[in-house]
Amino acid sequence: MSSEIAFSDVRSLNSLLDTGRITPTELVSIFSERIKCFNDISRAFITVTAEEAANTAGSLNKVDLSKSSIAGIPYASKDLFDVKDIRTTAGSRVFQDRIATEDAFVIDCLRRKHAIGLGKTNLHEFAYGATGENEVYGTCVNAYDPTRLAGGSSSGSAAAVAFGMVPAALGTDTGGSVRAPAALNGLVGLKPTIGRVSTRGVVPYCWTLDHVGIMTRTVADSADILEIISGYDPKDPASVSLPEEPYSANLGADFSGIRIGIPTRFFFERADPEILAALELVKEHLSSRGAMLLPVTLPDMEHTRTVSLTVQLPEALSAHSAYLEEHGHLYSRDFRAGLALGQCLLAEHYVKAKRFIECYRQQTNAIFRDVDLILTPATPEIAPKVGTVKTTRDGVSEAVGNAITRFTSFFNMTGHPALTMPCGMHSDGLPIGLQLVGRYFEERTIFQVASDLDRTEAFSIPLPKTDC
Amino acid sequence: MSSEIAFSDVRSLNSLLDTGRITPTELVSIFSERIKCFNDISRAFITVTAEEAANTAGSLNKVDLSKSSIAGIPYASKDLFDVKDIRTTAGSRVFQDRIATEDAFVIDCLRRKHAIGLGKTNLHEFAYGATGENEVYGTCVNAYDPTRLAGGSSSGSAAAVAFGMVPAALGTDTGGSVRAPAALNGLVGLKPTIGRVSTRGVVPYCWTLDHVGIMTRTVADSADILEIISGYDPKDPASVSLPEEPYSANLGADFSGIRIGIPTRFFFERADPEILAALELVKEHLSSRGAMLLPVTLPDMEHTRTVSLTVQLPEALSAHSAYLEEHGHLYSRDFRAGLALGQCLLAEHYVKAKRFIECYRQQTNAIFRDVDLILTPATPEIAPKVGTVKTTRDGVSEAVGNAITRFTSFFNMTGHPALTMPCGMHSDGLPIGLQLVGRYFEERTIFQVASDLDRTEAFSIPLPKTDC
Repeated sequence: MSSEIAFSDVRSLNSLLDTGRITPTELVSIFSERIKCFNDISRAFITVTAEEAANTAGSLNKVDLSKSSIAGIPYASKDLFDVKDIRTTAGSRVFQDRIATEDAFVIDCLRRKHAIGLGKTNLHEFAYGATGENEVYGTCVNAYDPTRLAGGSSSGSAAAVAFGMVPAALGTDTGGSVRAPAALNGLVGLKPTIGRVSTRGVVPYCWTLDHVGIMTRTVADSADILEIISGYDPKDPASVSLPEEPYSANLGADFSGIRIGIPTRFFFERADPEILAALELVKEHLSSRGAMLLPVTLPDMEHTRTVSLTVQLPEALSAHSAYLEEHGHLYSRDFRAGLALGQCLLAEHYVKAKRFIECYRQQTNAIFRDVDLILTPATPEIAPKVGTVKTTRDGVSEAVGNAITRFTSFFNMTGHPALTMPCGMHSDGLPIGLQLVGRYFEERTIFQVASDLDRTEAFSIPLPKTDC
Repeated sequence: MSSEIAFSDVRSLNSLLDTGRITPTELVSIFSERIKCFNDISRAFITVTAEEAANTAGSLNKVDLSKSSIAGIPYASKDLFDVKDIRTTAGSRVFQDRIATEDAFVIDCLRRKHAIGLGKTNLHEFAYGATGENEVYGTCVNAYDPTRLAGGSSSGSAAAVAFGMVPAALGTDTGGSVRAPAALNGLVGLKPTIGRVSTRGVVPYCWTLDHVGIMTRTVADSADILEIISGYDPKDPASVSLPEEPYSANLGADFSGIRIGIPTRFFFERADPEILAALELVKEHLSSRGAMLLPVTLPDMEHTRTVSLTVQLPEALSAHSAYLEEHGHLYSRDFRAGLALGQCLLAEHYVKAKRFIECYRQQTNAIFRDVDLILTPATPEIAPKVGTVKTTRDGVSEAVGNAITRFTSFFNMTGHPALTMPCGMHSDGLPIGLQLVGRYFEERTIFQVASDLDRTEAFSIPLPKTDC
């Protein structure tokens, strides 16, 4: 029972709770046990709040759990999200004693729906990096192969779900930090439209690109949780006021005639041939369902990494300058070097980078006049070995963190919603992922197509072999 | 007749046209004559398009003029607005031969409604400065006293309307460049909510703060023209999509019970006592109409000028860097110095300034939870003498351009709509102005109160004495 529960999705757990076959207290107990078993090897959690979770679970006896899709369900959040009275380390020594005085907006949303926070997950320090390596709290490993990285920066959230320690987790995604680790661990990772989900109460890295994201086992769970955490927040300047939406309304609906754009360049260069082959199968399947696959030309990507960094570093610097003077020695060397680089950037560079981003937005919007979705691989490589510095493909070397986010980071600049999900297994025993990108605020269309793939046997992947 | 027409407002001219008492051709001829008389002294126009205007007027014989509030009416636009096939100098030698290939968004709006462009007006070079001094195209003077400045940067638009050369003009407002010269010349100046009116096709100075604005003789004309030039422009990233609004709907409506905020500090320091006395009369009048006057505390203004410049200069630099290398010698010394200062600013400074602006927005929005409008003087001083470098008040000296925009520039940072209008005459024979600021996209409430003041005898001012 315990291991079956551990790898259940939220909807299944919810139905067990609704029918009284299990109680929130039992769920918390099962997942707390899993954490005891797997946290040492996975390094998924920085702080486990099993006791608070048990108390919350106990208090839910009087609550009608059927009224919320998440009531009584444990979840984890990346250790950037403030949870009242719990420390938020941001994966750094700098914040190791920082106790949150309020819930982040999304934590509050989940609390009101009686979700049960089971702990705060590990990450690349301050979300600066995509490998999830962390010299203070350890480096998260992949549930499919503990000699490989979970990927980051939301490494702990990915590991927590992939090792069966929670059925869902929150992360943040500034260049792919939810979507990439989700893909590398065989999970569903969602970055909603910019402005859809408030980032208030989340330690900022770069507010132009930061998005709150969701990791789950299924597309339906992603839609359900998005529904809970979406909404206008007047205290978040990027927050957008929109009518509330039943994101799951289109799940399973026919999508024949839908137009799916297939990028004709850049995205299909320098990638693992098995990943490209898996994507071909996805394309065939979508065609068989009546989707129209159309070639699209994405904007020139030559400067995208420079543009993204030119926005990231000064914004990070601005957020950290208050701590640098007194606590500079507590930062990792890697992040301190990034901040130092940020200090050299001129306002003119930043302004130009923002103009590039505006061009990317307009060019990508123009593509979405012709297609409803864009399909790409999630990552060009499967999860790299722990300690890998560079990946080499077709004779070209690339820092491993850049490779991991090569197909995702562009859509942080444009702000379009994007979801990654598994679509097969690599011969090395690691999951392969795809990415679906949609129009602004049209997450529903992504869920519609993704839920079909989610239910298609050909793309399902085995559970990781995790024994305590 | 000619002089009576010259100082008519748009609605009056429209009614003469509608009833056939005058033709567009006659209007163009009358205003073209005025320009011939007054352009040398006023320096209002850089380019007069009398011939094109006469042709357009002639072609309107077959058009039903009653269908548009502006059809057949001549107007002028600041020489930053692109008008197809006409040069846009931006008040600079750098652009002296730059012919526009397309209409700016707002010019196109007006053309579709059969308004008649009569020329392009003078300005502070590239809108950098509030005095309207221009070493290339001359310095615009005040219609009430030609030894005094019209004020800027939309100096020519203000002078063109104030001297009776057009009944309405477009300007741009980055720190008060429409509202301040309107106030100094006894006109109505409107800066709509940021995003309300597209800035596409307007030579940019600083896109975070740039607004298209309107100068007219009456509040009703301002509302009518706003209705024509508002609207979503997908090609302007700041443009906001909103339902179309009849801005003039509330003109003349009772506003008893409306809450008007009176800033308790900063705004009422260091101002001409006659201006403050005029504002007291306005307050008394508004009270008598049933308005509730409530004290409000605006955000701390200590850093506002620094914040504004820290955003302006790098954005201006980014817009001009393409020309600087080849045409650097053609820029005025003043603007070149500003751009050089912009080159020294770090990305970190710019990012921090943007964060300050976000705070200002939130703090000002919070004030608008308690009040419907904010009332301030338009400027702390009446129009300064030509050649004035500093103004001194209460022992404090201030660059004259800073003084002119001291009460207006804050609302470019917050993006709230603001209107200035005359509210009396100074004993020196110059107009005194007030400013009404409203909630985002609630221009209608501003017009409601302003139209009452516009019709109140006590606040009407004499026409300037201009004889050819």
